[in-house]
Amino acid sequence: MARFLDIFTVWNLLLVSIAINLSFILKLSVDNQPLIAGDGALKDELSLQGTHLSVSSSTSYSFSSSAPSVDGDDERVINLDHGDPTMYERFWQEMGDEATIIIPGWQSMSYFSDITNPCWFLEPEFAKQIVRLHKIVGNAVTENRQIVVGTGSTQLFQAVLYALAPQDAEQPISVVSAAPFYSSYPAITDCLKSGLYRWEGDATHFRKEGPYIELVTSPNNPDGFVRRSVLNRTEGILVHDLAYYWPQYTPISSPADHEIMLFTVSKTTGHAGMRIGWALVKNKEVAKRMVKYIELNSIGVSKDSQLRASKILDVVSDNCESSANNKSLFEFAYHVMAERWQLLRAAVKVSGLFSLPEFSPGFCSFRGRFFESQPAFAWLKCEEPIEDCESFLRFNKILTRSGKYFGVGVQYVRISLLDRDDNILLFINRLSNITIDDVYQHLKER
Amino acid sequence: MARFLDIFTVWNLLLVSIAINLSFILKLSVDNQPLIAGDGALKDELSLQGTHLSVSSSTSYSFSSSAPSVDGDDERVINLDHGDPTMYERFWQEMGDEATIIIPGWQSMSYFSDITNPCWFLEPEFAKQIVRLHKIVGNAVTENRQIVVGTGSTQLFQAVLYALAPQDAEQPISVVSAAPFYSSYPAITDCLKSGLYRWEGDATHFRKEGPYIELVTSPNNPDGFVRRSVLNRTEGILVHDLAYYWPQYTPISSPADHEIMLFTVSKTTGHAGMRIGWALVKNKEVAKRMVKYIELNSIGVSKDSQLRASKILDVVSDNCESSANNKSLFEFAYHVMAERWQLLRAAVKVSGLFSLPEFSPGFCSFRGRFFESQPAFAWLKCEEPIEDCESFLRFNKILTRSGKYFGVGVQYVRISLLDRDDNILLFINRLSNITIDDVYQHLKER
Repeated sequence: MARFLDIFTVWNLLLVSIAINLSFILKLSVDNQPLIAGDGALKDELSLQGTHLSVSSSTSYSFSSSAPSVDGDDERVINLDHGDPTMYERFWQEMGDEATIIIPGWQSMSYFSDITNPCWFLEPEFAKQIVRLHKIVGNAVTENRQIVVGTGSTQLFQAVLYALAPQDAEQPISVVSAAPFYSSYPAITDCLKSGLYRWEGDATHFRKEGPYIELVTSPNNPDGFVRRSVLNRTEGILVHDLAYYWPQYTPISSPADHEIMLFTVSKTTGHAGMRIGWALVKNKEVAKRMVKYIELNSIGVSKDSQLRASKILDVVSDNCESSANNKSLFEFAYHVMAERWQLLRAAVKVSGLFSLPEFSPGFCSFRGRFFESQPAFAWLKCEEPIEDCESFLRFNKILTRSGKYFGVGVQYVRISLLDRDDNILLFINRLSNITIDDVYQHLKER
Repeated sequence: MARFLDIFTVWNLLLVSIAINLSFILKLSVDNQPLIAGDGALKDELSLQGTHLSVSSSTSYSFSSSAPSVDGDDERVINLDHGDPTMYERFWQEMGDEATIIIPGWQSMSYFSDITNPCWFLEPEFAKQIVRLHKIVGNAVTENRQIVVGTGSTQLFQAVLYALAPQDAEQPISVVSAAPFYSSYPAITDCLKSGLYRWEGDATHFRKEGPYIELVTSPNNPDGFVRRSVLNRTEGILVHDLAYYWPQYTPISSPADHEIMLFTVSKTTGHAGMRIGWALVKNKEVAKRMVKYIELNSIGVSKDSQLRASKILDVVSDNCESSANNKSLFEFAYHVMAERWQLLRAAVKVSGLFSLPEFSPGFCSFRGRFFESQPAFAWLKCEEPIEDCESFLRFNKILTRSGKYFGVGVQYVRISLLDRDDNILLFINRLSNITIDDVYQHLKER
């Protein structure tokens, strides 16, 4: 551990120096080289020549052969409120036709995928690829599990609430999660004023008697920490949201082995537009009730997206198994995240106005080495005299999500780090240029 | 009108004769010829040579070059409970590659489709194709409407309830529909015991004071009749479910021009597995609230399916506009439905144990001629001494949905007529062979 801390102190010094020069670097025309570094040293990648600070402004529909100039970007509003995983577009562009799918007009017309499966709308090939990928990555036990597919893990979360809530209870079952919790949990749980379940807020302060559902998001959205249940009562049912338990974000310590585990393609491969998630569920009856909810809510899940997701997972697994490391999705995303976090930490140090969570290195069985978590979101704290972090960053044309939506104070914000390169680099550059004068200016104008 | 009735009397006689021979015809090996008749006389198509009683047992993934034998099918259970539109597979097989879609791995990764649209997850090309098809068919006004895409019209129905229900009301708003109503309405409305809305059953018997939502399904599921609101109070809000308002099922009298209109790809082109529906909504605020629901429920709608639906609608519109009538989806489906209804009516007449709704011919502006409705479902009544129609048909290995789920008695059942040819022909054959002895046998065995 001490060795790592030493290394990271040296790194921090280096990164402070890099960050100071960042705004100059960004003004240079930067090459559109692949960010995948293979086994090369990270130090080389971050060299000040900037050849690996690759910027792609390409949309999802076309390639960009030249990097954009960041001149004139001072006025641009940078929206990092949502966790839109467009960072992955470049990887899939580099894969070319490998992940292309062709669907003839006559395919997948029926509502049904497999009437012998309790989850009758689950495409068998997708189920196969889910099991295969979990085995390769080693992040979840799939044996003796029912797989339930959903229109994103958002629909699956609601299916879980429906499945676990007693149908004949006088009172709705309590739903809790330790703060800071995923900002959408309260709104989704309470939007229909259901008589089956009710949001009861921060699990840490939950004192009510009786049955409850505790949501354990690990690594946590928004702060990235690995989590366990905070309540350990006999009447509790645990639901594990493992959307970010992938080796680009956090070390894979062992295969997760919980009663109900939720995953989503969005944060695994970057295909948010597919709206595909899956649940691994031990109890058959719970799985059946989840299927019932999805039947009532949307009569199943898009087959086109399931077929495409199968193909995407297939390519990811094939490339993990091959020796061509530069085609590994997880290696690509690991290195992008590593660079982003290092630049962000350096920028934060330079400004002196913010702080970020610190993570201890952990051993990742998939990568075969130690590393620190590098979450999909930065959980940024604004230091005094900044009062409202979201408002202050908005004043600096950076849109983020306020800590108040996550059950904590306005001194925190959640910032997506999954956006395209140009947006992230512009954001880090802007953050590093914020001074105490900007804080006083903001306080004056409020 | 009189002329049509004359023609139809002659037709009925002819069809009785056809039905008597049906079981013999079905025992012949039948050709796999296209069912699309173009402008040829219907009489020719139904000739006893059986060359147009085309049977395809193909699955959705492969072609079948030869028709199946119906020998040995006596024991086969025929499931016509669901409205699975697999009837359309053959049309799309015959279209070959015309409707094939290719999606590269890097496409449509973002959550967002068009951030300038209040419905930010609606693919612009899909919106364009929706407007185009409605204009060609003339079945709905699209001007000054917001388009909201949903994971099938089922999700849109829930989005409408969320959008229309007052958020701060002490009591949930009543949701009603005239019986027989779509069997899923009560279950979907009440599954989460929402405090925002509550199912109150048959609109015809609704006496409660205060605001309410009336669902008007036209043509109606299950009985196929064209409908209007049955309640006309000032506090009512109407929602029109127009899933079946297409020229293969019913004459298009004029473009529908209601506040909220729901459509679905499933029943338009047969692509149920896509899970794509759309709403045309006059009031912008209502549309925005529907979008909010879909955001909470599934963070948007599969882009892959929207892209595929765009392609499918594009091909349908192109072929409607071209002179090649044998490539028109609506002509294909019109003729399949016409044949099925004629054979079914003949079989029902032969047995003397059942009855079906009767429809008056109406002028269809799209086809430029009069015809009678030929709904996607047969709303069959079992005559005395049969008591429970669903149970009696199940005894005869025909699975249907009991009238009790539609708010009426067990003497009715709903039977899907959108299944593959072999299933439908086997069903009609089996129905025509049912005798009063089977009724006594069933009564004895209960």
